[in-house]
Amino acid sequence: MADEKKTRISVNIYGKTYTIVGSEKSGHVQQVASIVDEKMRQLRDRNPALDTASVAILTAVNMTNDYIKLQQDYEQLEEQLKKEKD
Amino acid sequence: MADEKKTRISVNIYGKTYTIVGSEKSGHVQQVASIVDEKMRQLRDRNPALDTASVAILTAVNMTNDYIKLQQDYEQLEEQLKKEKD
Repeated sequence: MADEKKTRISVNIYGKTYTIVGSEKSGHVQQVASIVDEKMRQLRDRNPALDTASVAILTAVNMTNDYIKLQQDYEQLEEQLKKEKD
Repeated sequence: MADEKKTRISVNIYGKTYTIVGSEKSGHVQQVASIVDEKMRQLRDRNPALDTASVAILTAVNMTNDYIKLQQDYEQLEEQLKKEKD
Protein backbone atom coordinates (compact mmCIF):
# COMPACT_ATOMS: atom_id res chain seq x y z
CA MET A 1 0.00 0.00 0.00
CA ALA A 2 1.11 3.62 -0.56
CA ASP A 3 3.47 5.61 1.61
CA GLU A 4 2.06 9.12 2.31
CA LYS A 5 0.32 9.91 5.65
CA LYS A 6 0.76 6.48 7.18
CA THR A 7 -1.94 4.97 9.34
CA ARG A 8 -1.87 1.66 11.24
CA ILE A 9 -4.99 -0.48 10.87
CA SER A 10 -5.57 -3.84 12.57
CA VAL A 11 -7.34 -6.51 10.55
CA ASN A 12 -8.17 -10.14 11.19
CA ILE A 13 -7.36 -12.62 8.44
CA TYR A 14 -7.66 -16.38 8.81
CA GLY A 15 -7.82 -16.12 12.60
CA LYS A 16 -4.78 -13.90 13.09
CA THR A 17 -4.45 -10.14 13.57
CA TYR A 18 -2.25 -8.14 11.21
CA THR A 19 -1.33 -4.48 11.35
CA ILE A 20 -1.53 -2.89 7.92
CA VAL A 21 0.58 0.25 7.60
CA GLY A 22 -0.40 2.53 4.74
CA SER A 23 -2.30 5.56 3.55
CA GLU A 24 -5.56 3.76 2.82
CA LYS A 25 -8.83 4.44 4.65
CA SER A 26 -9.83 1.96 7.34
CA GLY A 27 -12.98 0.83 5.47
CA HIS A 28 -10.98 0.06 2.36
CA VAL A 29 -8.33 -1.90 4.28
CA GLN A 30 -11.05 -3.87 6.13
CA GLN A 31 -12.70 -4.66 2.78
CA VAL A 32 -9.41 -5.90 1.30
CA ALA A 33 -8.72 -8.00 4.42
CA SER A 34 -12.18 -9.53 4.33
CA ILE A 35 -11.76 -10.48 0.64
CA VAL A 36 -8.43 -12.20 1.41
CA ASP A 37 -9.94 -13.96 4.44
CA GLU A 38 -12.88 -15.21 2.38
CA LYS A 39 -10.73 -16.35 -0.56
CA MET A 40 -8.37 -18.21 1.79
CA ARG A 41 -11.29 -20.00 3.48
CA GLN A 42 -12.81 -20.97 0.11
CA LEU A 43 -9.46 -22.35 -1.06
CA ARG A 44 -8.94 -24.26 2.23
CA ASP A 45 -12.46 -25.75 1.92
CA ARG A 46 -11.49 -27.14 -1.51
CA ASN A 47 -8.06 -28.32 -0.24
CA PRO A 48 -8.43 -29.19 3.46
CA ALA A 49 -4.93 -30.73 3.72
CA LEU A 50 -3.10 -27.44 2.91
CA ASP A 51 -1.25 -25.58 5.67
CA THR A 52 -1.87 -21.86 6.23
CA ALA A 53 1.24 -20.71 4.34
CA SER A 54 0.26 -22.74 1.25
CA VAL A 55 -3.35 -21.52 1.41
CA ALA A 56 -2.06 -17.93 1.57
CA ILE A 57 0.48 -18.43 -1.24
CA LEU A 58 -2.12 -20.00 -3.55
CA THR A 59 -4.55 -17.20 -2.70
CA ALA A 60 -1.85 -14.69 -3.70
CA VAL A 61 -1.32 -16.68 -6.93
CA ASN A 62 -5.05 -16.51 -7.75
CA MET A 63 -5.23 -12.78 -6.99
CA THR A 64 -2.14 -12.10 -9.14
CA ASN A 65 -3.68 -14.13 -11.96
CA ASP A 66 -6.90 -12.10 -11.70
CA TYR A 67 -4.85 -8.88 -11.63
CA ILE A 68 -2.90 -9.73 -14.79
CA LYS A 69 -6.10 -10.61 -16.65
CA LEU A 70 -7.78 -7.40 -15.57
CA GLN A 71 -4.68 -5.48 -16.63
CA GLN A 72 -4.97 -7.03 -20.12
CA ASP A 73 -8.67 -6.09 -20.24
CA TYR A 74 -7.75 -2.57 -19.14
CA GLU A 75 -5.17 -2.23 -21.91
CA GLN A 76 -7.70 -3.45 -24.49
CA LEU A 77 -10.23 -0.92 -23.27
CA GLU A 78 -7.62 1.85 -23.46
CA GLU A 79 -6.87 0.81 -27.03
CA GLN A 80 -10.59 0.89 -27.87
CA LEU A 81 -10.96 4.34 -26.31
CA LYS A 82 -8.00 5.58 -28.36
CA LYS A 83 -9.69 4.33 -31.55
CA GLU A 84 -13.02 5.96 -30.61
CA LYS A 85 -11.21 9.27 -30.23
CA ASP A 86 -9.46 9.04 -33.63
CA MET B 1 -7.94 -20.22 -12.17
CA ALA B 2 -10.56 -21.43 -14.65
CA ASP B 3 -11.92 -24.96 -14.93
CA GLU B 4 -11.97 -26.11 -18.60
CA LYS B 5 -9.22 -28.44 -19.95
CA LYS B 6 -7.29 -28.76 -16.71
CA THR B 7 -3.52 -28.95 -16.72
CA ARG B 8 -1.16 -29.46 -13.76
CA ILE B 9 1.82 -27.13 -13.64
CA SER B 10 4.58 -27.20 -11.00
CA VAL B 11 5.92 -23.86 -9.83
CA ASN B 12 8.40 -22.85 -7.17
CA ILE B 13 7.39 -20.04 -4.83
CA TYR B 14 9.41 -18.96 -1.80
CA GLY B 15 11.44 -22.19 -1.85
CA LYS B 16 8.52 -24.62 -2.06
CA THR B 17 6.95 -26.41 -5.03
CA TYR B 18 3.23 -26.03 -5.71
CA THR B 19 1.09 -27.75 -8.30
CA ILE B 20 -1.27 -25.32 -9.97
CA VAL B 21 -4.31 -26.97 -11.52
CA GLY B 22 -6.09 -24.90 -14.15
CA SER B 23 -6.60 -24.11 -17.80
CA GLU B 24 -3.84 -21.51 -18.07
CA LYS B 25 -0.75 -21.91 -20.25
CA SER B 26 2.47 -22.93 -18.51
CA GLY B 27 4.26 -19.66 -19.37
CA HIS B 28 1.44 -17.61 -17.84
CA VAL B 29 1.36 -19.70 -14.65
CA GLN B 30 5.16 -19.45 -14.33
CA GLN B 31 4.93 -15.67 -14.77
CA VAL B 32 2.25 -15.40 -12.06
CA ALA B 33 4.30 -17.63 -9.70
CA SER B 34 7.42 -15.58 -10.26
CA ILE B 35 5.55 -12.32 -9.50
CA VAL B 36 4.24 -13.81 -6.22
CA ASP B 37 7.71 -15.14 -5.32
CA GLU B 38 9.30 -11.74 -5.98
CA LYS B 39 6.63 -9.79 -4.07
CA MET B 40 6.95 -12.16 -1.08
CA ARG B 41 10.74 -11.74 -1.01
CA GLN B 42 10.47 -7.94 -1.24
CA LEU B 43 7.96 -7.92 1.65
CA ARG B 44 10.15 -10.25 3.73
CA ASP B 45 13.20 -8.02 3.11
CA ARG B 46 11.24 -5.08 4.57
CA ASN B 47 9.91 -7.21 7.47
CA PRO B 48 12.51 -9.88 8.27
CA ALA B 49 10.71 -11.05 11.43
CA LEU B 50 7.58 -12.25 9.59
CA ASP B 51 6.91 -15.97 9.19
CA THR B 52 6.09 -17.42 5.75
CA ALA B 53 2.31 -17.52 6.31
CA SER B 54 2.25 -13.83 7.30
CA VAL B 55 4.46 -12.84 4.36
CA ALA B 56 2.08 -14.71 2.02
CA ILE B 57 -1.07 -13.25 3.62
CA LEU B 58 0.28 -9.69 3.40
CA THR B 59 1.32 -10.31 -0.21
CA ALA B 60 -2.24 -11.45 -0.94
CA VAL B 61 -3.52 -8.28 0.80
CA ASN B 62 -1.30 -6.08 -1.38
CA MET B 63 -2.36 -7.88 -4.58
CA THR B 64 -6.04 -7.61 -3.63
CA ASN B 65 -5.56 -3.91 -2.93
CA ASP B 66 -3.94 -3.43 -6.36
CA TYR B 67 -6.76 -5.45 -7.96
CA ILE B 68 -9.51 -3.31 -6.41
CA LYS B 69 -7.78 -0.11 -7.50
CA LEU B 70 -7.35 -1.39 -11.05
CA GLN B 71 -11.01 -2.45 -11.06
CA GLN B 72 -11.99 1.12 -10.15
CA ASP B 73 -9.76 2.48 -12.93
CA TYR B 74 -11.33 -0.03 -15.33
CA GLU B 75 -14.85 1.09 -14.42
CA GLN B 76 -13.86 4.74 -14.94
CA LEU B 77 -12.44 3.92 -18.34
CA GLU B 78 -15.64 2.05 -19.27
CA GLU B 79 -17.66 5.09 -18.23
CA GLN B 80 -15.44 7.33 -20.36
CA LEU B 81 -15.80 4.99 -23.36
CA LYS B 82 -19.58 5.06 -22.94
CA LYS B 83 -19.52 8.87 -23.01
CA GLU B 84 -17.31 8.94 -26.11
CA LYS B 85 -19.83 6.73 -27.89
CA ASP B 86 -22.83 8.92 -26.98
